[in-house]
Amino acid sequence: MQHFITNDDLSLEITTAVIQRAHAMAQSPADFQNLARHQQLATLFFEPSTRTRLSFTSAMHSLGGTVLGFESSSSTSTAKGESLIDTIRVVSQYVDIIALRHPQAGAAQLAAKYASVPVINAGDGAHLHPTQTLADLTTIDHYKHRLNHLTIAFAGDLKYGRTVHSLVQALMRYGQNRFIFVSHPTLKIPVTLRAQLVAKNIAFEEVTNFAAINVPLDALYMTRVQAERFATPAAYDEVKDAIQLTPAQRNLLTPETLLLHPLPRGHELPTTFDTWPQAHYFDQVKAGRFVRMALIETLLAQNH
Amino acid sequence: MQHFITNDDLSLEITTAVIQRAHAMAQSPADFQNLARHQQLATLFFEPSTRTRLSFTSAMHSLGGTVLGFESSSSTSTAKGESLIDTIRVVSQYVDIIALRHPQAGAAQLAAKYASVPVINAGDGAHLHPTQTLADLTTIDHYKHRLNHLTIAFAGDLKYGRTVHSLVQALMRYGQNRFIFVSHPTLKIPVTLRAQLVAKNIAFEEVTNFAAINVPLDALYMTRVQAERFATPAAYDEVKDAIQLTPAQRNLLTPETLLLHPLPRGHELPTTFDTWPQAHYFDQVKAGRFVRMALIETLLAQNH
Amino acid sequence: MQHFITNDDLSLEITTAVIQRAHAMAQSPADFQNLARHQQLATLFFEPSTRTRLSFTSAMHSLGGTVLGFESSSSTSTAKGESLIDTIRVVSQYVDIIALRHPQAGAAQLAAKYASVPVINAGDGAHLHPTQTLADLTTIDHYKHRLNHLTIAFAGDLKYGRTVHSLVQALMRYGQNRFIFVSHPTLKIPVTLRAQLVAKNIAFEEVTNFAAINVPLDALYMTRVQAERFATPAAYDEVKDAIQLTPAQRNLLTPETLLLHPLPRGHELPTTFDTWPQAHYFDQVKAGRFVRMALIETLLAQNH
Repeated sequence: MQHFITNDDLSLEITTAVIQRAHAMAQSPADFQNLARHQQLATLFFEPSTRTRLSFTSAMHSLGGTVLGFESSSSTSTAKGESLIDTIRVVSQYVDIIALRHPQAGAAQLAAKYASVPVINAGDGAHLHPTQTLADLTTIDHYKHRLNHLTIAFAGDLKYGRTVHSLVQALMRYGQNRFIFVSHPTLKIPVTLRAQLVAKNIAFEEVTNFAAINVPLDALYMTRVQAERFATPAAYDEVKDAIQLTPAQRNLLTPETLLLHPLPRGHELPTTFDTWPQAHYFDQVKAGRFVRMALIETLLAQNH
Repeated sequence: MQHFITNDDLSLEITTAVIQRAHAMAQSPADFQNLARHQQLATLFFEPSTRTRLSFTSAMHSLGGTVLGFESSSSTSTAKGESLIDTIRVVSQYVDIIALRHPQAGAAQLAAKYASVPVINAGDGAHLHPTQTLADLTTIDHYKHRLNHLTIAFAGDLKYGRTVHSLVQALMRYGQNRFIFVSHPTLKIPVTLRAQLVAKNIAFEEVTNFAAINVPLDALYMTRVQAERFATPAAYDEVKDAIQLTPAQRNLLTPETLLLHPLPRGHELPTTFDTWPQAHYFDQVKAGRFVRMALIETLLAQNH
Repeated sequence: MQHFITNDDLSLEITTAVIQRAHAMAQSPADFQNLARHQQLATLFFEPSTRTRLSFTSAMHSLGGTVLGFESSSSTSTAKGESLIDTIRVVSQYVDIIALRHPQAGAAQLAAKYASVPVINAGDGAHLHPTQTLADLTTIDHYKHRLNHLTIAFAGDLKYGRTVHSLVQALMRYGQNRFIFVSHPTLKIPVTLRAQLVAKNIAFEEVTNFAAINVPLDALYMTRVQAERFATPAAYDEVKDAIQLTPAQRNLLTPETLLLHPLPRGHELPTTFDTWPQAHYFDQVKAGRFVRMALIETLLAQNH
């Protein structure tokens, strides 16, 4: 049974096929609207994530399928002490595919072990959020027509931001990408990620402000500093506004620079940039819907 | 892009067409069951309103479409600080039409400004609830075959009751309607509404009890006094039972008098009236489903 | 109007037909996937029960129908004081059939009295849960090809466990079944149930541990002791682990013995038994989906 727990669960070849399929679906959605007819998706969200849940739901509806599930653990049988494993086994009897969101790292992996239908990881704690990465790759590929030979800056919370870690790892699979990491000194990329970059001999640099960037960017990927990751409000306050995009950084954004953000955003990305022609964060949202459609189609195809 | 934020957003001509279409849908629902096939409605309810949410959902299902959304703000990304504007922009990527319920007056207007799909106001605080008004108009038109030349009494909380304000304003657009307002002296209609009635030279009177009504009524529209509108429990207790329909008022209800209520009800409308032949409050519920179908159809038609 | 509030609401003949229909649906689901097309089910869950709610939802989707509703009373209009009766009358205007879960015994009976569409009892407090019983009967019939001449042991909380009471009563309608009740002395079957068994001259015995069972079992039906039924934590702690299935009881389980449990489970049924060939508790879940499909079909058929 093929699941989608990490981005590595799909080979580079299949990942590329899924992204191309997403482009075709966005181009002509009516051609795909009966692909999952009479099939059911469960959205099991043990922690709330409205945007991700609605994206999966919209994707399944767009394929002609139906959706059931729950949106937070407060109203689930886990209150009666049902284990995740039993929940997964039970729901496997109801549906054809499961999208699981869970606050604990590793939960999706565990679920996949016991499910009798494909499981998609819709985020497991601070660990992984691989369909966000697919949305990011699809957006970049749509506008750049390639996923290699790119210079991409990542800015904001690079320590805890799982979307950054996932996207960097995914882009490492393609050739000749170069990364610039922009963050407060206490929010730099984790040691393990740095070690991977070094081991694979991938070009990267780490800076603490936008002014230190002196190469043209193919993309600037902004992220929010999340208060809930910090031990104290003071620790959060110290770093939260260290990296902000302001009109002063307009020079950084050439007509070739995609401005990206996984949303939701904070002060780091003011709405004044929304009218910038290369602002594509709402296109990432759109890409997320279509690439989830393509992913669901790919995983469901195993059953036929 | 045509939205439906206030009743004035639809011309009198289109409002009439929507009401007639609702009658046709109620008459023969099977003729309309594929009208919105492969289209999606988002029900974004930032405050709970089960009856309204289920009415929209049933309406969209009855047109063959699908529905996604949330039922209260507690489980949404707004907990992560996402703004209403960003939520609307995100959800615009997922669906073809949005029904928005929000505790703040003006929220629907703001949402419409940023949405790339039609927005329906499903209630914004104490401000407006225009689809309830459509349901009321459809019910009256169904039984009276006209929306003019009517004598209608409104009773209960006329100060805070937005359904009363909306329906009165909607009926002011039709000719020769006459209003009688029955309320405790502290719950009379707002000054602004009174000024509109005077400016348009519309016949109305304000009384403090049912006994003061001495003309035959085409309809009696009852409303509940809502505890949550009052600063103190004592202020609520003082007025909550001022206007109640009791068997003593049976004379008020002729065979021609529609007994209406937007529900939910309190003590003001005892269940003993439910068997009264002219009790039509559950017909208002039914009309609400069909007129929401007609409204969704009308707004979706723009996209084709 | 035919409702399904207790198992006695369906004659033995119709119950048998529903079970046989569920077998056919499980065998060939594609033959039934348009049976309820353009029909709507409301899942009105005034208390959370994710498993039951998702089972009904999956069942309706599998028949081609749509579903709307709520998953707990916290986000319903009951917060505004709407009565159960008015809620049922309102929702009757939206859907073709209702599944109601409510914390109060008798709520489903009351709802059925006022609904204008069929009502299914999806559990009313500690009182009844008749569709769980249908799932249990379907599972037993699937593997034993009969619902009579069975020797079945029930173990765990036999005092408060409504699934036990319902299943015993349902099996009493078939001939020559024999029951063995295994529980802590304080958790024995209620006096009323014992009186029914005696009155109908049905063979049963009551024991306090598995070692006292000295006949081959057709089925062992385990249940969880629920903490919420006890006045104090101490009262719960005293009995909660009195009956547990351990490897020592493997002798009890012959190749002919179905091991059943309504789930969720506690310590009484360790996961080590999950690989036992006769462990069928996840098959009960599957049967629950298909027998709910058959039940919905049966009740909807009245409208045509």
